[in-house]
Amino acid sequence: MELAFAKMGGLIPAIIQDYRTGDVLMLGFMNETALAETQRGGEVVFFSRSRNKLWKKGESSGHVLKLRELRIDCDADAILAKVEPVGPGVCHEGYRSCFFRALDEKSEARVTERKTFAPERVYGAEGKQ
Amino acid sequence: MELAFAKMGGLIPAIIQDYRTGDVLMLGFMNETALAETQRGGEVVFFSRSRNKLWKKGESSGHVLKLRELRIDCDADAILAKVEPVGPGVCHEGYRSCFFRALDEKSEARVTERKTFAPERVYGAEGKQ
Repeated sequence: MELAFAKMGGLIPAIIQDYRTGDVLMLGFMNETALAETQRGGEVVFFSRSRNKLWKKGESSGHVLKLRELRIDCDADAILAKVEPVGPGVCHEGYRSCFFRALDEKSEARVTERKTFAPERVYGAEGKQ
Repeated sequence: MELAFAKMGGLIPAIIQDYRTGDVLMLGFMNETALAETQRGGEVVFFSRSRNKLWKKGESSGHVLKLRELRIDCDADAILAKVEPVGPGVCHEGYRSCFFRALDEKSEARVTERKTFAPERVYGAEGKQ
């Protein structure tokens, strides 16, 4: 089937969900190549908007996301990847999920989760994920 | 806190998750006003890219999304809304979730869910959601 890559300049948002717990871990973007690489290799590959290139999640940390199932929405403009995350967390700030903060009515953010690893030990000074 | 609306021309992707089952129901976009309206009214409001205006989910169908919790990711450029969905489903094609299709290795889509309602009865001929 044709996915609606054109809608957002070649990118489609990809929701990453832990297939066991159901927790949403992060949101990234995929272009056609990233999606093809994800399907080919069985581990999630994004397109990094900040670095403007393909980004294999876990390429330096080892915290790869093993693909369990890919789903597509009704408009074919959003991807849901159910994954088995390898390692203690996906977030470069040291949390299991990137959504470690709740936003209250006044848009104040509050950290609600505990760190599961020390990011400086995993990513080094460069902060690569 | 400041959210990164500027990154995508004023919009931030918002993942909608059923707070009870953990199922991801859909992905929409919010601008600052949509987020403020969501926080104010306690029901999810998106910004519709196709109609270029605010879109209260369920405004005609009654299938509103009651906000239970808002979360924000590490880069403040993605929103996770945990909701209590009202009605049999959120998808304009008649499914509980918009992610009712799995994508196989060859990018063939396969419907894996059953319809939970008849969309033509809910949305009428106009297909409003």
